Amino acid sequence: MNTKLFDYKIKNHFSIYVFLDKINYLCGLKQIYKQMKIAIAQLNYCVGNFEQNTKKIIDAASEAKTKGADLVVFSELSICGYFPYDCLEFSDFICNCQKALDNIAKHCHDIAVIVGAPIANGEEGQKPLFNAAVFMYQGHRHVFKKKQIGSNPLFDERKYFEPSHDEEQLLDFGGHRIAIAIGDDLSNRSSDPIFMENRIDDLKRLSPDMVIALAASAFDYTMSRYRCDTLRQTVLKHELPLIMVNQIGAQTHLIFDGGSMAFANNGHVDTALPFFKEAVVVVDTDNMYFYRTAEDNIAIPEKMSLIHDALVLGVRDYFHKMGFKNAIVGLSGGLDSALVTYFAAKAIGAENVRVVLLPSQFSTDHSVSDAEALAKKLQIHYDTVAIKPIYDVFEKELQPFFEGRPFDVTEENLQARIRGVILMAFSNKFGNILLNTSNKSEASVGYGTLYGDMCGGLSVIGDVYKSEAYELARFINKEEEIIPWHTIEKAPSAELRPDQKDSDSLPDYGLLDAILFQYNECSKSAAEITAMGFDSAVVERTIKMVNRNEFKRQQVAPILRVSPRAFGAERQIPIVAKF
Amino acid sequence: MNTKLFDYKIKNHFSIYVFLDKINYLCGLKQIYKQMKIAIAQLNYCVGNFEQNTKKIIDAASEAKTKGADLVVFSELSICGYFPYDCLEFSDFICNCQKALDNIAKHCHDIAVIVGAPIANGEEGQKPLFNAAVFMYQGHRHVFKKKQIGSNPLFDERKYFEPSHDEEQLLDFGGHRIAIAIGDDLSNRSSDPIFMENRIDDLKRLSPDMVIALAASAFDYTMSRYRCDTLRQTVLKHELPLIMVNQIGAQTHLIFDGGSMAFANNGHVDTALPFFKEAVVVVDTDNMYFYRTAEDNIAIPEKMSLIHDALVLGVRDYFHKMGFKNAIVGLSGGLDSALVTYFAAKAIGAENVRVVLLPSQFSTDHSVSDAEALAKKLQIHYDTVAIKPIYDVFEKELQPFFEGRPFDVTEENLQARIRGVILMAFSNKFGNILLNTSNKSEASVGYGTLYGDMCGGLSVIGDVYKSEAYELARFINKEEEIIPWHTIEKAPSAELRPDQKDSDSLPDYGLLDAILFQYNECSKSAAEITAMGFDSAVVERTIKMVNRNEFKRQQVAPILRVSPRAFGAERQIPIVAKF
Repeated sequence: MNTKLFDYKIKNHFSIYVFLDKINYLCGLKQIYKQMKIAIAQLNYCVGNFEQNTKKIIDAASEAKTKGADLVVFSELSICGYFPYDCLEFSDFICNCQKALDNIAKHCHDIAVIVGAPIANGEEGQKPLFNAAVFMYQGHRHVFKKKQIGSNPLFDERKYFEPSHDEEQLLDFGGHRIAIAIGDDLSNRSSDPIFMENRIDDLKRLSPDMVIALAASAFDYTMSRYRCDTLRQTVLKHELPLIMVNQIGAQTHLIFDGGSMAFANNGHVDTALPFFKEAVVVVDTDNMYFYRTAEDNIAIPEKMSLIHDALVLGVRDYFHKMGFKNAIVGLSGGLDSALVTYFAAKAIGAENVRVVLLPSQFSTDHSVSDAEALAKKLQIHYDTVAIKPIYDVFEKELQPFFEGRPFDVTEENLQARIRGVILMAFSNKFGNILLNTSNKSEASVGYGTLYGDMCGGLSVIGDVYKSEAYELARFINKEEEIIPWHTIEKAPSAELRPDQKDSDSLPDYGLLDAILFQYNECSKSAAEITAMGFDSAVVERTIKMVNRNEFKRQQVAPILRVSPRAFGAERQIPIVAKF
Repeated sequence: MNTKLFDYKIKNHFSIYVFLDKINYLCGLKQIYKQMKIAIAQLNYCVGNFEQNTKKIIDAASEAKTKGADLVVFSELSICGYFPYDCLEFSDFICNCQKALDNIAKHCHDIAVIVGAPIANGEEGQKPLFNAAVFMYQGHRHVFKKKQIGSNPLFDERKYFEPSHDEEQLLDFGGHRIAIAIGDDLSNRSSDPIFMENRIDDLKRLSPDMVIALAASAFDYTMSRYRCDTLRQTVLKHELPLIMVNQIGAQTHLIFDGGSMAFANNGHVDTALPFFKEAVVVVDTDNMYFYRTAEDNIAIPEKMSLIHDALVLGVRDYFHKMGFKNAIVGLSGGLDSALVTYFAAKAIGAENVRVVLLPSQFSTDHSVSDAEALAKKLQIHYDTVAIKPIYDVFEKELQPFFEGRPFDVTEENLQARIRGVILMAFSNKFGNILLNTSNKSEASVGYGTLYGDMCGGLSVIGDVYKSEAYELARFINKEEEIIPWHTIEKAPSAELRPDQKDSDSLPDYGLLDAILFQYNECSKSAAEITAMGFDSAVVERTIKMVNRNEFKRQQVAPILRVSPRAFGAERQIPIVAKF
């Protein structure tokens, strides 16, 4: 087997300490060690925007070269953006990937490049593509294919990609023997969850001296830490330096946080790239073998900070990548719409956001004053449309049919739906995209009106439980009062009937969210949750509400994913079932 | 390896012709051939309704016994209904499966039973379940596990099920050596799509004399024929009789058509069970070896008949399994709402359906008269609510904000949304479930108003193109005029502005649907479709409309699936992307 694919004579920096300090280590490597500078390009791609993605890649390669890099590495499927789903089935999409590669190849003379791309598989009866890392340098090109095609329910790669059938090989470049891994190639395939075993174990017998991994690892508030810990296991097991390149940016509901890393072979993070920001950073292989850091050079932000930055990025990318400029929110004076308005303003600028206050006869004075206070604080244009005249004419026209029947959920929903119609009319007339304001607690128990307050093109906080929403508001207000404190401190209410409070029909949010977390995120049964010490009747009632409202969740906008288990693609519960 | 698992002394019917007619054949089998009667139980399960599913299974076993069967076979995951999705993650769900098995085991003394069930896999680091066929007889129990875990995007079994690691084994029962297969065990795993190779090839070396397959094969209008042709390949390759048991019934959007079959070893269908109906039918193994039919005893209905029966079943099961009694439809006088009303009446009875006519100032006289004619023909209760007074008050309240701007899509959508609000108010007040009336052509190009005419809990004809809707209406009217001919023959219109016609903004439906089929069902690119002879500008415009409206499709109710590629789970296009 020829593992020596490339041996380009690039400028090698022989270091004096090679012959002094680390002679034993080098004997182990059985080769002359050469210093190399590698750029990690952590960029924000848009699925299918080949022109823009290609330009970003070429610009980053040029920047890397300027910074002295010999090699620049991009993330998984960087050519087309991750994850393209069924776009991968269209021949023109794959053809555009090929053209983009050819275009980038023209810029690989002074610097070598590794980009992620789908590559056609001509073999009849197999999946039509490989998920590949393409190395390009001075007219040469070599393709490394992903072997461990994952089973992540967020993106079913097995639908499109054939696992590599190639014999294992290394990239021989700049005096280094580099093991190339893509995404799940670094996931644990061992049947023992404690023992890390992955593709690097197979590549190890070819004696690599380094691992480069192209990833597209989606954010959730546990993932930034988890990713670091998991990669470290591979580093420590094989005592190999490891560079992991992740993308940043949101793709509809999925957010990618970046946080690319270079590990020294002692298991410490030598260099960490920022979270939620593009960056091109050069690392020096010397630091991964010799001048090794004695502690991690990485600081992972705390949960609320991560969620905050993720949601800002999620909203911003939705608008920018869709080519939308303006947003609209129905501002009730409550916490949820206040948060969504804040995120919209933060993401796309207050001048591009408008809000509408839609008080009914059941709205309290403070609803209006709290909403106004926020709009003024954020300097957002607001309008007020009282819904009573419209509500009254609906009542009048429906009266012949509803006569004699009491006020019930019909009339409550009617108010919410009138608001939805007005907001969508503003949206249609002025081109502002309506943002959905449901939180995860409401979405769980169905405490929201379909086609009413559940309207909107993007659900901003639909993966944030109400108790987390409070934490988030306090985080936002850490330095100054942005969300009115009164909004945060008053008892939550839908204000759809006189003196209504959420607590009339729902358990306290602290309790509710604790149960919901066990059910939604941990898939615990009623008996298991009760055994944790929760009241059995409350648990049963909560689970019943969640199950009964699956139909609502399946008609809601994409939800920005910040938790390990958001409603949407990764949680599949049948609507028709007996629970 | 012990392949001789069971050898119960059941009453065997020695047949005289064993020693006369087929002596050579029997030598080939290397055993004394014994006649056996096998019941195929094709039932309609509800996911998670263990009480009802168990009762159905026990009753069918009893019926099979009465009909003289030695063995009764049920479909894949019959214990819990197929497909339970993430319900499989809950311990109480799996526990209920186990209890149901124990319960059924008590009824397996006079007859042997094979049922489908998820079985826990204790192995750490593996998927937590096996998809199994459980043989039970006189206190004995043996589990056969599925090996080929499929990659069907409709139900991602790999998320839950570990493939069998057991050594291959046969079921030795009643003097027969039976190869047990489950679902995709019979799919082609060969890299050559022409050459059929599957688990039976592995089992073949154990010399089975018959194949029994437990399936849950979802309907589409090509599948009933395809399934028969594919199974026949396995039969002919190995010259083995084959019994395939499918379930019937709808599970939210997925419809299962039944059509279970017993093949003689000459490749002909000996016995076919009905489509879209429950049935318990006994087959005689003699007929699969000796008295073999010289032609297929199966009649596969034509496309419109299949779609018709599938939609009736789809609507009926949605209501019955959810415990809903009544439906409501907004009846416009056009074809789509007429079809949906017809299917509702056919599925749950005209007395359980009410319709509302919602004319606007742009509605034509014939809209109202056509709608009334249908309601009268079907004997359905109808009400009329003119939307103008409500529209006028919306206009008046929005006038301060919209002043000076022309009538546009805002006002068109406003009418559709007022209708949605009224229909949902009726739905809330009287408990009637609103049915969505969009067709697949509209859903493709976004010719519908989100939160307006796209409201509803179930999309009945969302997988039927407009040209197919015409065919379906003609099929329904074959014997008498049920859908008014005028509804079928007039030019389609949304009637949201004066003299509006669909053809003002869309290509002719025949042309449009032909392009959409190539794009949606066949994933052909614009260039490929144009190369088929379609006008390039029309193709480009159509594809742009499809892509731009992905956001609408992701907020719509589950769509009853009748085509090989329905919108929903199996077609995943990102909302945010550049196309």
